[in-house]
Amino acid sequence: MFISFEGTEGVGKSTLIAKLNEYLIGQNKTVLLTREPGGTAVAEQIRHLLLSTEHSEAICHDTELLLMYAGRAQHLENKVLPALAAGQIVLCDRFTDASFAYQCAGRGLSHEKLALLNQNFVPRMPELTFWLDAPIETGMARARARGALDRFEQEKTEFFSRVRAGYAQLHQQHSERIKRLDATQSADDVFAQALAYLQAAL
Amino acid sequence: MFISFEGTEGVGKSTLIAKLNEYLIGQNKTVLLTREPGGTAVAEQIRHLLLSTEHSEAICHDTELLLMYAGRAQHLENKVLPALAAGQIVLCDRFTDASFAYQCAGRGLSHEKLALLNQNFVPRMPELTFWLDAPIETGMARARARGALDRFEQEKTEFFSRVRAGYAQLHQQHSERIKRLDATQSADDVFAQALAYLQAAL
Repeated sequence: MFISFEGTEGVGKSTLIAKLNEYLIGQNKTVLLTREPGGTAVAEQIRHLLLSTEHSEAICHDTELLLMYAGRAQHLENKVLPALAAGQIVLCDRFTDASFAYQCAGRGLSHEKLALLNQNFVPRMPELTFWLDAPIETGMARARARGALDRFEQEKTEFFSRVRAGYAQLHQQHSERIKRLDATQSADDVFAQALAYLQAAL
Repeated sequence: MFISFEGTEGVGKSTLIAKLNEYLIGQNKTVLLTREPGGTAVAEQIRHLLLSTEHSEAICHDTELLLMYAGRAQHLENKVLPALAAGQIVLCDRFTDASFAYQCAGRGLSHEKLALLNQNFVPRMPELTFWLDAPIETGMARARARGALDRFEQEKTEFFSRVRAGYAQLHQQHSERIKRLDATQSADDVFAQALAYLQAAL
């Protein structure tokens, strides 16, 4: 089973993933924890390019999108698909929905470009996606408290409002797969809500 | 005017580009010399990922293709298109034909994937392309004499035979744009042949 976790910065994805991992291990499941961008040695190098704030040149929007999919292709082929084939449960921090929310809704790239990349370079989609949703300011305050902000985290509030609206649109379109979790709740309540969805899906 | 230079390793692209640059400067033209993968700060970092032989993990074919187009998008938007808009002549060492020859003919990726990337991420094609063609062994001997081989140069002869066949196919399909130069000739003769084509096109 392939499960992805989505949401803007600081909404508590890592905490939820850790709690679900602990639960699944307790159920004698083999779990792969991974993330995008990144997840393999080469894909983590692509992640570094994407998140670095040290570039002497702005990264173009098309470049950002194609780098995301380059890393995704590597991550899928070398890590996610082999784990799924081996019967593992894959918990992935961000996947294609993030490309829609950040690169299309956030940056303004066309949905057609994204759809073409998904059709041609993404052979497998998650069966279940948790969208952790909270007002932008709540998450940004948490992200700032964590320390130095990456290239995406340095964006303005309006950018993240568009990203959040993008997630809301995806949630409407794919309500079977994407489950909204109210991320203003306590971590335990978010976990309980996610667990109910997971148990229904397993 | 946008001119690209194509061919397998060691066929003399750099020498020809240098000679044409010198000629064009003598004609009071402003020339931009550039290359792919690479050509801007970010695209050169992508080039490094693509050519490095130090990876602990093999780069997947789709990843290689998408990294090529990520670098290309950056190079086009930030360097090639502004130079063309300013009236410069752009001499570019490799462009989309190399993706066809190396990633499709060489690696076996589908032409459809490449066509989709070209249609959606390449707003401008070269008006003139020089394909320097020579038997693989001729070029590889020159490449080996230059020193350490990059990730592509380390491929086997059969790979480069497929790449060369890919270029031959493109040359047939786009004979108006792509001019074949016999790269077994002397550098001066290759230059004279290229110059005749260039003068006809200018």
